[in-house]
Amino acid sequence: MTDLLWQKSGVATDARIMRFLAGDDVVLDRELFLYDIEASAAHVGGLANIGIVSADDAVAIRRELATLADDFRSGAFVLDERFEDGHSAIEARLTERLGDAGRRVHTGRSRNDQVLVASRLWLKARLRELADLDRAVAGVCLDRAGREALPMPGYTHIQRAVVSSTAMWFAGFAESFIDNALRAEQTLALIDANPLGTAAGYGVNLALDREHTTRTLGFGRMQVSPIYAQLSRGKFEIAALDALGAAVLDLRRIAWDLSLFTTAEFGFVSLPPEFTTGSSIMPNKRNPDVVELMRASYAPIAAARTEIEQLLSLPSGYQRDLQLSKGSLLHGFRHGLDALALLPDLLAKLRWNETAMRASIEPSMYATDVAIEAAVAGIPFRDAYRAAADSAAEAGQGRTPEDSLAARTSPGAAGDLRLDLLRARLAELEG
Amino acid sequence: MTDLLWQKSGVATDARIMRFLAGDDVVLDRELFLYDIEASAAHVGGLANIGIVSADDAVAIRRELATLADDFRSGAFVLDERFEDGHSAIEARLTERLGDAGRRVHTGRSRNDQVLVASRLWLKARLRELADLDRAVAGVCLDRAGREALPMPGYTHIQRAVVSSTAMWFAGFAESFIDNALRAEQTLALIDANPLGTAAGYGVNLALDREHTTRTLGFGRMQVSPIYAQLSRGKFEIAALDALGAAVLDLRRIAWDLSLFTTAEFGFVSLPPEFTTGSSIMPNKRNPDVVELMRASYAPIAAARTEIEQLLSLPSGYQRDLQLSKGSLLHGFRHGLDALALLPDLLAKLRWNETAMRASIEPSMYATDVAIEAAVAGIPFRDAYRAAADSAAEAGQGRTPEDSLAARTSPGAAGDLRLDLLRARLAELEG
Amino acid sequence: MTDLLWQKSGVATDARIMRFLAGDDVVLDRELFLYDIEASAAHVGGLANIGIVSADDAVAIRRELATLADDFRSGAFVLDERFEDGHSAIEARLTERLGDAGRRVHTGRSRNDQVLVASRLWLKARLRELADLDRAVAGVCLDRAGREALPMPGYTHIQRAVVSSTAMWFAGFAESFIDNALRAEQTLALIDANPLGTAAGYGVNLALDREHTTRTLGFGRMQVSPIYAQLSRGKFEIAALDALGAAVLDLRRIAWDLSLFTTAEFGFVSLPPEFTTGSSIMPNKRNPDVVELMRASYAPIAAARTEIEQLLSLPSGYQRDLQLSKGSLLHGFRHGLDALALLPDLLAKLRWNETAMRASIEPSMYATDVAIEAAVAGIPFRDAYRAAADSAAEAGQGRTPEDSLAARTSPGAAGDLRLDLLRARLAELEG
Amino acid sequence: MTDLLWQKSGVATDARIMRFLAGDDVVLDRELFLYDIEASAAHVGGLANIGIVSADDAVAIRRELATLADDFRSGAFVLDERFEDGHSAIEARLTERLGDAGRRVHTGRSRNDQVLVASRLWLKARLRELADLDRAVAGVCLDRAGREALPMPGYTHIQRAVVSSTAMWFAGFAESFIDNALRAEQTLALIDANPLGTAAGYGVNLALDREHTTRTLGFGRMQVSPIYAQLSRGKFEIAALDALGAAVLDLRRIAWDLSLFTTAEFGFVSLPPEFTTGSSIMPNKRNPDVVELMRASYAPIAAARTEIEQLLSLPSGYQRDLQLSKGSLLHGFRHGLDALALLPDLLAKLRWNETAMRASIEPSMYATDVAIEAAVAGIPFRDAYRAAADSAAEAGQGRTPEDSLAARTSPGAAGDLRLDLLRARLAELEG
Repeated sequence: MTDLLWQKSGVATDARIMRFLAGDDVVLDRELFLYDIEASAAHVGGLANIGIVSADDAVAIRRELATLADDFRSGAFVLDERFEDGHSAIEARLTERLGDAGRRVHTGRSRNDQVLVASRLWLKARLRELADLDRAVAGVCLDRAGREALPMPGYTHIQRAVVSSTAMWFAGFAESFIDNALRAEQTLALIDANPLGTAAGYGVNLALDREHTTRTLGFGRMQVSPIYAQLSRGKFEIAALDALGAAVLDLRRIAWDLSLFTTAEFGFVSLPPEFTTGSSIMPNKRNPDVVELMRASYAPIAAARTEIEQLLSLPSGYQRDLQLSKGSLLHGFRHGLDALALLPDLLAKLRWNETAMRASIEPSMYATDVAIEAAVAGIPFRDAYRAAADSAAEAGQGRTPEDSLAARTSPGAAGDLRLDLLRARLAELEG
Repeated sequence: MTDLLWQKSGVATDARIMRFLAGDDVVLDRELFLYDIEASAAHVGGLANIGIVSADDAVAIRRELATLADDFRSGAFVLDERFEDGHSAIEARLTERLGDAGRRVHTGRSRNDQVLVASRLWLKARLRELADLDRAVAGVCLDRAGREALPMPGYTHIQRAVVSSTAMWFAGFAESFIDNALRAEQTLALIDANPLGTAAGYGVNLALDREHTTRTLGFGRMQVSPIYAQLSRGKFEIAALDALGAAVLDLRRIAWDLSLFTTAEFGFVSLPPEFTTGSSIMPNKRNPDVVELMRASYAPIAAARTEIEQLLSLPSGYQRDLQLSKGSLLHGFRHGLDALALLPDLLAKLRWNETAMRASIEPSMYATDVAIEAAVAGIPFRDAYRAAADSAAEAGQGRTPEDSLAARTSPGAAGDLRLDLLRARLAELEG
Repeated sequence: MTDLLWQKSGVATDARIMRFLAGDDVVLDRELFLYDIEASAAHVGGLANIGIVSADDAVAIRRELATLADDFRSGAFVLDERFEDGHSAIEARLTERLGDAGRRVHTGRSRNDQVLVASRLWLKARLRELADLDRAVAGVCLDRAGREALPMPGYTHIQRAVVSSTAMWFAGFAESFIDNALRAEQTLALIDANPLGTAAGYGVNLALDREHTTRTLGFGRMQVSPIYAQLSRGKFEIAALDALGAAVLDLRRIAWDLSLFTTAEFGFVSLPPEFTTGSSIMPNKRNPDVVELMRASYAPIAAARTEIEQLLSLPSGYQRDLQLSKGSLLHGFRHGLDALALLPDLLAKLRWNETAMRASIEPSMYATDVAIEAAVAGIPFRDAYRAAADSAAEAGQGRTPEDSLAARTSPGAAGDLRLDLLRARLAELEG
Repeated sequence: MTDLLWQKSGVATDARIMRFLAGDDVVLDRELFLYDIEASAAHVGGLANIGIVSADDAVAIRRELATLADDFRSGAFVLDERFEDGHSAIEARLTERLGDAGRRVHTGRSRNDQVLVASRLWLKARLRELADLDRAVAGVCLDRAGREALPMPGYTHIQRAVVSSTAMWFAGFAESFIDNALRAEQTLALIDANPLGTAAGYGVNLALDREHTTRTLGFGRMQVSPIYAQLSRGKFEIAALDALGAAVLDLRRIAWDLSLFTTAEFGFVSLPPEFTTGSSIMPNKRNPDVVELMRASYAPIAAARTEIEQLLSLPSGYQRDLQLSKGSLLHGFRHGLDALALLPDLLAKLRWNETAMRASIEPSMYATDVAIEAAVAGIPFRDAYRAAADSAAEAGQGRTPEDSLAARTSPGAAGDLRLDLLRARLAELEG
């Protein structure tokens, strides 16, 4: 390993302990490395503005940082166990190539705000990705809700309840993913604050040009208090996981619906073949494994949240416990975004089996229609309900699913879907 | 118990099972009862607009609902195990007092959207309370950050690191609670959608006047899709708990700080006596129990979130599992808001022990200042760091805490707190 | 409220803060009250043995404790907000009735070990209840597995896979609940340690007769270390919830199976009518609400565990945070045991719909049988698998479900259920 | 990638979806690979016993499996993305080297029971490791408790309460880790059941020699029911995490104590230098990072538990969701065991600072002693308590910490530690 930044002479280290301290940190830092380089460049710009590094040195450092980024992307530079972490790797490279100029780059900065700003930039990128996926899902759903309206049973308690339609099903998830996109955007606004320049949580005796780094890195505002910058570690990560989790909770319900709808017993939906797999022992099987793994994808997000939450029972000020938040966050986001990324395609391609759905609509599913018609005709609803209950089996006489759907005119229901309202909200979020 | 709304003749019930089904539901419904009455009145207004109840009946029903609300507030009416739930209680009362008019009130409505709308109104009220408390905490912190700046040690790893100040400590929590208030407001905007009129998740064959109920109940928008109305149960509750949890995570760190600061070993803070208690066996003790219970208050919120999260692995459409979300939500919110409600007072009244804090500032805590001064003077920081490390024990020569704080001019640090930026954000949120 | 045990003169209290401190504690203490009385009697016996209370006083105190227990059971004594907690109530009563003898009862005891021992006794009683319920479920399952073997589809991925039987289904849950009973017994053994006599976590300057209290209260061993007695608070509660949760996770899977099997689409199972309910708006519905609430019952257990887990990030020594563990524990146990208590009846009474199950067995479900027969005949399995896959649709020719089940002779499968092994394990646990 | 075991002709796959399905599975399978090979050898032995593979083929297959294990250990064989999973890799190798004999190996086995048995063997090995570590920690604690008894303050509410000793501190954790070892052993007994031979959850039409595989693989019993074998996936993993978590919860409290005891304010403990690190910006710091990361190590365990728990809301029968349980389990166990592995050394090497501890013992800390002495002398305890409270500041007159500790003769306290009882329990567990 390269020299430890903080190593003093005469203190032995223990290999097993060093491994424990390192954990997967360097591997995880690969995810953050380009953001760390970007923030380092901004920091050097700020130092140049206040005369701590010369203009020439600043140019040289930024050029070298750009080279490092290229080398990292191309694989010419590998971030591995030689380095304590990504931060040390950057400083080591600059010092090796630029000598004293490199040794100046950490002036007024701590690894604390360095990891904070890199993580924050990473988080912002992920939340933008999330918002885009949320909008994409909503878009597919709105599209299909507007184009198809096949009758299908509507369930409560997974029991057949009333006539519903594929349009209603898609419209439900359209609205849910519009809300999910809103939440992603809200969260982005919440965390859009620059922690660079807060050092180890108490600032430094330098009038750092934090406005410069805030602007250069594209932050919406400065995170003012150095103490709060530390307090926000974990807190902002949880907020981002919350926004991700909201979307994946809805994805889980879609996956559940499809898991049922693709059983032989329901038989409502055919999945594209690439979304299914076979069995190692049973020759006859095609299984909806992809849908099941999508359904499972909420679990890593819940786990990541739990992990970070468990770390935060601490007094203020940085503590090493927080290191573990990095791995959880990556774990949760990777699973969640990967699952969401498959969703637009899955929703666009799934095929409804109209025959099976129609066959599942039973006469008694019109009983609610009957009761309400009676109520409209003047019979108190509670009496109408009892009458309809007594003759539920005959409720379907002379009725078709299409009639029932057309008459369902409460706003949002099949007879008056109000997709225009949803389209307008989505357009606003895409603004 | 009153007649079950859905009971048909000839089906026996089992007392033990009925108790299992009921759980604490009626007790919990007491929290929601006034909101349920309010929403019922709006529903009746909507029914009148489309001619399902007569204008006279609507007046009578609303008058009776107002009476019921008064009776409930005064204790003249008690919501208890006689009723299956609050919804049944309302309908029973209206039917008893108004006959057929009462039997009409449930037209076009299900208990599903009835509980959704009552819970939504309750949640909105709680989030407003949360936002107010967040702002109150931020206000106290900003106030004290602006008035006092006693030197104190700044810690990382609970190890003395650099000189800090009480102003920095308060400013950190000021900014954190401004963010918490923002989050509460965002969440309020997210969930501010009217589910009334979505019935059991598929709408009804009536052109319900949902614009009327949306407007009357003060919602920002209609929740359009009946299917999404069902999907949002649990999801919105989690979102609200997330906003609450964000604030209480910060409260927990304050409580941790105070738990340490009030030990004999630190001795930095004296709590108001009403915030402490004694021991049943040890005559010499005064314990910071209130602070400890405040610290513990995150646990019920995490628990509530876990409980609801665990319920939601379901296909779409209402399922009885969701009943349990009510109790968790109340449990989490009660503990969280009660703890937050004590915070402004605690923060306003805690007294710093200046002597103890000054005595804890060691000479080596100026070593970072020394290193950065050397860096400003042209020595590469990494070299300056090593030099300062070698003579850390002498770093304090000729330096006072006040010097160190005054020189800490990176924006947000003690020498340049930028409280104006925080005040402006708070003012905007109070808009 | 009665005088606070620890109140000193001249310190004001604040009503709002006292309420925050109290929380639901007195209400929760009602659950523990009889155990607290029982342990108090044992404590007094121990004090008499070492001469701290006279033999006469000991008799008087125990008599009064017995009266208090009777009064509590009969409702003549109500534990309510007049008392800070149950412990204070006992001491107040003894002092009121017995004067100085009552004032001696707390000698050598703290509320810390008092609540510990009462909770421990409560926990042991609940674990015994759990073990009994686990055994009862296993018994019903073994019984039905031995009596009925209707063919039904066996599923993987909720897709029809191979022929299975109701006997296999019941045998699976029989074995799972035998393991659950073992786990409950193991946990009982783990926590069966007497904390009484450890005072506030450091013991006292009295040679308390802890062997007496250990024996009298029926504990398997003394919890030796006072510091560990404190450390075990929360830890033992979590262990008990783990044992409960293991059983309820299995119950959740039963509930899921029944939720699917009672859909119109599957139609495999009819529930006893008392296990179903109706809808407030849809006259045609009978819903498996009980099964759904049973399925949901894991959530409160997970929540209780989360809540306690969140409280335990603390240094050693009692801290008030732990108070919240009481409520969570009761919440989790009540829901879990209530759901388990309904399970034996539900399992004993559910009726299989043989026609629907047979109709769901498709020809391709014999393909695995075909492939393995070919493998037995000498064709390498991987080749046999591919051949069977190509002609899966014809796999059922000339085969009946009964043939397939009878030939399934791998130990544990339908052709060789080995219920004797399971019966022997259950008998051993009932020993 | 090698051919998929289940691939049929004419079905396209999608690279992105295949990646989603694979996840980290192959990488995770590396952990399980040797166990999978071991179980495969046992399976082949069983097949030979019932005549499905010839004796010669069985010899050849086992030889090739042994070679594969050697190649894997030496690095000559790398399990990577070329294979769908470890199971496929084994079958591919056997088929490539042994032709038809290799193609017979999967007869009567499914990947379902294959992964179950490999995971079960892995879990058993980890639980043995856990039990060993628990005993090692208990051993160190017992040893130091028996050798040193320096006075130190005993805390409740992190407030100085009574005189305690380092012997009491160590004895507390000795007993806790004895319980933890017991729990690990109990869990080992619980899960010590062989799932091999249950195929995809319904057994097979072959009289597999499950007694052979049970005995050969060293299992305590057969897991009888194929359906239960599937149900136990996740359930047993959670049980193992529970046993690990119990130990790491105690480790967390040790870490918390040490985190406080190593502050400048307490100053009770010096850590071995290899257990500390420095800061990148503050030259003066030595931080207890190792202790902090140990404290954090409960978080990954809680996360792993949450992740698996979230996956299990499913009907019975294998579903792909369960794949994610593997990664969580490894994640939780690695962090937990790594932290526990450092604990014996840390506890053996930490040095107490006697001067600082003595200096922290205040006169009022004898007030409980005084009150109880008065009670022994006949004053009712509640009166003695109030008297001692009034003169708490003078409680220490003429008393030394040693006096107080020697007089603390309640069993388990400093004057009567009863380490013999603990040693006997530990010896029994080491049996």
